[in-house]
Amino acid sequence: MRASYHEQLAEVGDGLIEMSRLVGSAVSKATTALLDADLSAAETVIEQDEEVNKLYRQLDDVAVQLLARQQPVAIDLRAIVTALRMSSDLERVGDYAVHIAKVAKRRHPATVVPVELRATILEMGQAATRIAIKAGTVIATRDLTLAAQLLADDDTIDELHAELFEKLLSENFEHGVEAAIDLALLGRYYERLADHAVSVSHAVTYLVTGEHSDPESYAADA
Amino acid sequence: MRASYHEQLAEVGDGLIEMSRLVGSAVSKATTALLDADLSAAETVIEQDEEVNKLYRQLDDVAVQLLARQQPVAIDLRAIVTALRMSSDLERVGDYAVHIAKVAKRRHPATVVPVELRATILEMGQAATRIAIKAGTVIATRDLTLAAQLLADDDTIDELHAELFEKLLSENFEHGVEAAIDLALLGRYYERLADHAVSVSHAVTYLVTGEHSDPESYAADA
Repeated sequence: MRASYHEQLAEVGDGLIEMSRLVGSAVSKATTALLDADLSAAETVIEQDEEVNKLYRQLDDVAVQLLARQQPVAIDLRAIVTALRMSSDLERVGDYAVHIAKVAKRRHPATVVPVELRATILEMGQAATRIAIKAGTVIATRDLTLAAQLLADDDTIDELHAELFEKLLSENFEHGVEAAIDLALLGRYYERLADHAVSVSHAVTYLVTGEHSDPESYAADA
Repeated sequence: MRASYHEQLAEVGDGLIEMSRLVGSAVSKATTALLDADLSAAETVIEQDEEVNKLYRQLDDVAVQLLARQQPVAIDLRAIVTALRMSSDLERVGDYAVHIAKVAKRRHPATVVPVELRATILEMGQAATRIAIKAGTVIATRDLTLAAQLLADDDTIDELHAELFEKLLSENFEHGVEAAIDLALLGRYYERLADHAVSVSHAVTYLVTGEHSDPESYAADA
């Protein structure tokens, strides 16, 4: 028995929401792994990314089936194509969480983040987790007010990112080149994953309004 | 008069091939900008990325039209969905070229790459350019032998990337934290863009054989 059109369309939406939940949790756990030098948390993030990738591939299959069997009309069609873009972005959020976890794992049992930068990294991790989770809510509710709020979290991350670089390049930074590179890459991972989550939210806005809320972010620079 | 099914399908293929050409040229030019501290080359790369983004958006529109009007059958459907994935990867290759150009621009008129690392960065840039251009050829010809060759170029980049990090972290590296961070990010940009180009080639292999040549790269970790 084949699933009905609406069931399959709902399956796409549910898949995206589940992906947001998984990657939000991964970002949060990766940040913990980093700040607590928690090897088992890091390994969990790395292993569980396979679930995200599985969902990503499943969404492709459901989309193809939907398109093949149901011949959806214009707006639903655009929704399905946009869903493929969104799943791509969410999959990448998960990958960045894995990159963060891998830095924690590589340096274990050492701590990557010096004490004077812990607050900055913690705040970046928290804001990034909020953005990923909110992206799921925006998909579920199509709430454009919430979509706009994501931008505030993204601004926070950009500010923290700039602050981080300033500290890495200041004369007071005394932890050497290796630590500086680790922290520069980490800053970039948080900044990039937040951009991908924001891109999901822009895609929802586009679906609802028919207008690109931010043409540049549609082709998010990754 | 509306374009025929085959014309539109060819338009998708041509669009992807043109994207590969543009991003291959961007990677090459960005590497020149970097090695010659050539501001005008850097600015050209940054400006011309808009063309890549335009093609990326056009491909979405053509795909939606194709799906809406022509009701393609299973294999063509998979080809269209895969084309959306490929255009996403190529668009990101272009973005990494922009990131590289922006590093050159930011440091201008200073040179980012110290003399002892010029050969490494040049080789990374050349291998990355080859991969991007070959990805276009693989799309055009569906030549799986060439697709396999891409992997050799990708291995070269991974080796150069590892070599670069080794040099950045050696005691002989005397250019300070800022240069080390720039170079670490540059190494990562080349490594990531090559992975996206390889991902395009895997997608072609999948279309031809029906098998994921590399399940992990299908969900390329970006």
